[in-house]
Amino acid sequence: MNATALGPQVITKENLLKHWQGHRALTRRVIEAFPEKDFFEFSIGGMRTFAQLTSELLAIGAPAMKGIVNRDVKPYAEKLDIGTTKADYLSKWDEATEEINTYWNMLDVADFSQKFNLFGQYEFPIIDNIFYFIDNEIHHRGQGYVYLRALNIQPPFFWEREL
Amino acid sequence: MNATALGPQVITKENLLKHWQGHRALTRRVIEAFPEKDFFEFSIGGMRTFAQLTSELLAIGAPAMKGIVNRDVKPYAEKLDIGTTKADYLSKWDEATEEINTYWNMLDVADFSQKFNLFGQYEFPIIDNIFYFIDNEIHHRGQGYVYLRALNIQPPFFWEREL
Repeated sequence: MNATALGPQVITKENLLKHWQGHRALTRRVIEAFPEKDFFEFSIGGMRTFAQLTSELLAIGAPAMKGIVNRDVKPYAEKLDIGTTKADYLSKWDEATEEINTYWNMLDVADFSQKFNLFGQYEFPIIDNIFYFIDNEIHHRGQGYVYLRALNIQPPFFWEREL
Repeated sequence: MNATALGPQVITKENLLKHWQGHRALTRRVIEAFPEKDFFEFSIGGMRTFAQLTSELLAIGAPAMKGIVNRDVKPYAEKLDIGTTKADYLSKWDEATEEINTYWNMLDVADFSQKFNLFGQYEFPIIDNIFYFIDNEIHHRGQGYVYLRALNIQPPFFWEREL
């Protein structure tokens, strides 16, 4: 169905993807802003490093979208073999960008209100799961901003979302 | 128009409000979790205190929704007279909760794609402005989580969104 056939939308499917990928582009900039060593080692108050937070985001985004599209319930699995450098993480990030776009295009507007048991643990409407991915990323990236500030590094502007 | 007349939605207007207010309920818990003194004084890396971040969120939420509904372009104004205690901030927070609900109900689904020049500075579709309010809150609250951890305080669970 095209937008006209659908009638007015709070947000269109295309714009929600653009919104998420804009956030992902900003998170990518935050990864880039970390010094190599601090990306893997720096933390505050016993929290995870930004590399560990990035692993979590990578374990959610593309694998979760694949699970949703295929209605294939698989347990959450955080990959521990992303690599040992920031460049490895960035390259995995870019792969995930493409995968998310591909799976997103396989969803229909009517799918968003259907329930799916994400990772066999989160039985919610698909839109709620997707908002969780986006919000969780913003949340952890907010932590990354504090790490950067504590390292005396200026983080990228929050509104910088161009791909 | 009711939901049936509208056809399938990526997210309904009602659920987007519920989503935002769920986030606001979590932010309220984060305010509560701060010791009185640290709410006004603690910060990391030269960033703002959580009281200052909360002032920003209060200057956006309800006033922005009022501006949108009335299509009344007013400059951004951070109130400096919220009060001097956490209780003052929480009571202002609860007032804003009601105001946001009231103004939200005055919006029609068709409004979300219309442009509005928020605070005379951000000429975007209303949905983009609203996503900005939500995302900005998650972002700053993520900073608050690091402050709490650095203070050796367990923050509320990220998925705790009940009002």
